[in-house]
Amino acid sequence: MNPNQTKIDNLTSAIRNIPDFPKPGIQFKDITPVLADPQLFADALELLTNDFKQGEIDYFVGVEARGFIFSAAAALKLGAGFIPVRKPGKLPYDTYEESYDLEYGSNSVCIHTDAIRPGSRVVLMDDLLATGGTAAATAALIRKFDAEIVQVTFLIELAFLKGREKLQGLPVRSLITF
Amino acid sequence: MNPNQTKIDNLTSAIRNIPDFPKPGIQFKDITPVLADPQLFADALELLTNDFKQGEIDYFVGVEARGFIFSAAAALKLGAGFIPVRKPGKLPYDTYEESYDLEYGSNSVCIHTDAIRPGSRVVLMDDLLATGGTAAATAALIRKFDAEIVQVTFLIELAFLKGREKLQGLPVRSLITF
Repeated sequence: MNPNQTKIDNLTSAIRNIPDFPKPGIQFKDITPVLADPQLFADALELLTNDFKQGEIDYFVGVEARGFIFSAAAALKLGAGFIPVRKPGKLPYDTYEESYDLEYGSNSVCIHTDAIRPGSRVVLMDDLLATGGTAAATAALIRKFDAEIVQVTFLIELAFLKGREKLQGLPVRSLITF
Repeated sequence: MNPNQTKIDNLTSAIRNIPDFPKPGIQFKDITPVLADPQLFADALELLTNDFKQGEIDYFVGVEARGFIFSAAAALKLGAGFIPVRKPGKLPYDTYEESYDLEYGSNSVCIHTDAIRPGSRVVLMDDLLATGGTAAATAALIRKFDAEIVQVTFLIELAFLKGREKLQGLPVRSLITF
């Protein structure tokens, strides 16, 4: 078995399934056992970034709160900057805002208007691709800067939620699919 | 001038002051220009972790959301695990909870009950020491595990808010004091 597949299998085994969280019927994928284990955490970061060379990416963009974890660590590892995308009212400077639909109602994500230099190469990294609403809205925020979205990278993809359909035209990669 | 002082001066210059955020009279210290710059971000992580040797720390603990950024990157850099502390209702498994007083009312922070092995060496890292309430409550969560808090490390300390007084008995370090 190739070493990357062994690492992916170890990561998959460590992810904890929590039934009925945050509401009945949802099987929540708890990544905290991966984060807490130095080897698994390092393996996850290595696999999440192994498509990119040192210095090749200008920014890793992460969405609060869990999305900050992998994207900030990836930025440090690859010699890139880190850009936070946050809920409305959290970023202190001028922001762009994008809304996306939920089952009931809608949410928004924001980015500072001076966050990204035009022409930059950007990776959007998050732990989970579910319905894709957050990622699609974040990609729309990044596009306002005339930047290239090199990859949209996820540790986990819940394929039955068809989040990829909302990210058409973007290079989407996930390590682990449920 | 010693090279560390030069780095600290560069970080200090990059922090952006936002008046009247999140409410009138508050001078918010915006660290996003530090995060976005690969050299400043790497310098900040180097300085925040230079008291520790590779592998010497078992866990870096970070409080959502901004606290995840430096603590997750530090965990990867030092070969440690990362432990998230979150607001109530966000962590999916069983949690311990600690409350702390605000000017009006109170807030709580939570940690998974299986987050930390007894006897571990732990660093609590955050971007900002303000009134110290969150850090003190997080330290109380860590103590439930019979773990050693090796350091409580901040990028920025707002000394006039006297947050250190809430962290007595803990080894507190901050890089930049306003």
